[in-house]
Amino acid sequence: MYKVYVYVTLKEGVLDPQGTAIQESMHSLAYDEVERVRVGKYFELTIENTEDVNQRVNELCDKLLANPVIEEYRYTIEEVVPN
Amino acid sequence: MYKVYVYVTLKEGVLDPQGTAIQESMHSLAYDEVERVRVGKYFELTIENTEDVNQRVNELCDKLLANPVIEEYRYTIEEVVPN
Repeated sequence: MYKVYVYVTLKEGVLDPQGTAIQESMHSLAYDEVERVRVGKYFELTIENTEDVNQRVNELCDKLLANPVIEEYRYTIEEVVPN
Repeated sequence: MYKVYVYVTLKEGVLDPQGTAIQESMHSLAYDEVERVRVGKYFELTIENTEDVNQRVNELCDKLLANPVIEEYRYTIEEVVPN
């Protein structure tokens, strides 16, 4: 069994209005030390044993979890040993 | 300067219709090995030097980034040394 943690963020240079709005809210609450906020998506996948888990996860990210035009992704894979 | 990586997920037991919908899409694309999908939010914060960065980040998460009723969060903090 595998646990896969996927992080999807906007590519550098792509406008992040959500991030800007959150940053402004933080400033309005007097957290002026916050210089920048980037917002992204986070996925936790539980995957049964499969041979080419890396390739399959890449495909899932490209096809479903990230929009390759404006987003980039990275992921980590943990093998879970059933107790 | 600090880089803070925040991960917000739904608490166990809270329905995750988005996760279910994504899992079904994966199955419809023949990725049947995917047993579960949990969807969350991911934030990257850039924060100027501040004394109690941990406490400030906790406050930001409680006040703005996570809904404490249905969500939980964890974060990691990296100190960034300007080159």
